[in-house]
Amino acid sequence: MERITIIGMGPVGASIGLALRQARLSNTEIVGTDADREALSRASKAGAVEKAIGNLRSAVEGAQLVIMDTSLTDTKELLEVLGTDLADGCVVTDTGPLKMRVMEWAENSLSKGVSFVGGHPLLKKPVKDMKDGDATLFQGAHYCVIPSRSADQASVKTVVSLVETLGAKPFFLDASEHDSFSVAMSLLPTVLSAAYVTSTSRSGSWREMSRLASTEFELASHLATTDPQDSELACLANPDALVHWIDQLITELYAYRNYIKDKSDKLLESFIQAWEARGKWEVGVTDEDASRPNIPSLGQSMATMLVGERLVERHRQMTSEKKQSKWKYQRKG
Amino acid sequence: MERITIIGMGPVGASIGLALRQARLSNTEIVGTDADREALSRASKAGAVEKAIGNLRSAVEGAQLVIMDTSLTDTKELLEVLGTDLADGCVVTDTGPLKMRVMEWAENSLSKGVSFVGGHPLLKKPVKDMKDGDATLFQGAHYCVIPSRSADQASVKTVVSLVETLGAKPFFLDASEHDSFSVAMSLLPTVLSAAYVTSTSRSGSWREMSRLASTEFELASHLATTDPQDSELACLANPDALVHWIDQLITELYAYRNYIKDKSDKLLESFIQAWEARGKWEVGVTDEDASRPNIPSLGQSMATMLVGERLVERHRQMTSEKKQSKWKYQRKG
Repeated sequence: MERITIIGMGPVGASIGLALRQARLSNTEIVGTDADREALSRASKAGAVEKAIGNLRSAVEGAQLVIMDTSLTDTKELLEVLGTDLADGCVVTDTGPLKMRVMEWAENSLSKGVSFVGGHPLLKKPVKDMKDGDATLFQGAHYCVIPSRSADQASVKTVVSLVETLGAKPFFLDASEHDSFSVAMSLLPTVLSAAYVTSTSRSGSWREMSRLASTEFELASHLATTDPQDSELACLANPDALVHWIDQLITELYAYRNYIKDKSDKLLESFIQAWEARGKWEVGVTDEDASRPNIPSLGQSMATMLVGERLVERHRQMTSEKKQSKWKYQRKG
Repeated sequence: MERITIIGMGPVGASIGLALRQARLSNTEIVGTDADREALSRASKAGAVEKAIGNLRSAVEGAQLVIMDTSLTDTKELLEVLGTDLADGCVVTDTGPLKMRVMEWAENSLSKGVSFVGGHPLLKKPVKDMKDGDATLFQGAHYCVIPSRSADQASVKTVVSLVETLGAKPFFLDASEHDSFSVAMSLLPTVLSAAYVTSTSRSGSWREMSRLASTEFELASHLATTDPQDSELACLANPDALVHWIDQLITELYAYRNYIKDKSDKLLESFIQAWEARGKWEVGVTDEDASRPNIPSLGQSMATMLVGERLVERHRQMTSEKKQSKWKYQRKG
């Protein structure tokens, strides 16, 4: 009997469990563990694991694959603790957004016979408020696979199989490349959100001002709800890349500031650039795609093409000098 | 027969219509108009208006109250166009997030017998993807009422009645105070989101990097989908307040940057401050409330109090120097 152990029964961990169980792997048991007993028992009731084992060492005993869906803080601790307890030949993977530092921890803590192959599922829907897991969470999603230097091919294959079993598409990257992109796409927004909240909430008028906080504030401040210790650890795990991106952003904000102060036309241009880049990302059209003939590719539905064309049309309207009113009325003679 | 005309059948306009119709005002007809014929016919089918009138002048003819749920760009145009067509005694209100400039437009365009009283509903749920209106959208929400200098008491009373009929709570502010708060709570996030998107999407690695964009990117870039012309107009409507807030934010981001570079303890402190302020906002607890005895006030349920206490407890845990591990395992002897 093979054993796959999932550590951490949050939405992602529980969804991995559900998807693996749905795949009915032969001769394999899915074990789950979590420091939070309530989460563990809920996942067990939802059918995410066959065995819920509270004690960590017992849970990983004899496991061929250990999947850690834990915060960065917990991942560090668990790698140290589990280091010498895992069976020879065991493969360890994680689900977090940063890999360089985790690789270092794994290198320092795990015994020679144990391989680490990082994983990072790229989910499009937020899982924060998801109570139970969802077996379809990974269907069609990209899933970064980041082997450590010492990982052998068999271990990489194990994690690729896991990714494919979940219904996701493996996407290979090296740790430093992954982290520099991931810092810009996920950590920078967290720092930005926290800085936005501290800079506004420190104001003497915060009490009155916060009564006017509505959906825009909700969006801008949302990532400030991330566990502060995790945010700190993530920032200090990749300080150089992060500082680079913060500097870029400060420069950009300063440019917007001056466009506003000077009533410059570049303000509208910048808003249009942002709007276009965001729109293209949403529909999955890149500039490269846009220059190709109008034949939908495999990954691109006809609907996507239409949205892409609407973007171009709207852009033309916005940048054309004479804008015609859309309202129907007759001016008085 | 009295007439209330709603211009703009977006989610907010349609919801106002539904709520007003549900209130069964005696001897009053609810008229709707929109430049987008499809939106107008959908709102009409959903029962948001009794009469859907495509021509703007016919729609407002003889109206005692005109409610504009339009973008800032359209509001400007419509005030100019409608200026001299509204009946004497008519009251005009809007639903937008900025008032100083709108007041100016109203002052310059509306004839003497017409009063402008600004309105700004503070909704907690995003309406962007709402297809039809929702009669309960305003239930219990704060709703800013901002009278223009020339508005008489009767006109203010008309708008307060509207707010109360919608189930919302009127909240009086003067235009400059309202705008300086509103800029920080709603416009600053929009600028921030656009600057985040332009600074990252300009990178040479954008194509690969954007594949790693997931929920954090979605949140941080969401407001960059706002119509660029509206964003520009909003920025130029209150440039001084906005520049002030951008400067505050740049200073704050630069502080975070240096804490990260220097691995300073202040980084964790800042994340905790942001986390606390955001948490308190979410549960509606202010610092002032927190120092009061533990008796739930009218606006504060027992549940809110409990969440408030959990925040305090978590804060204690996070700032205590020795953090005990939550994981169950025995260290090897």
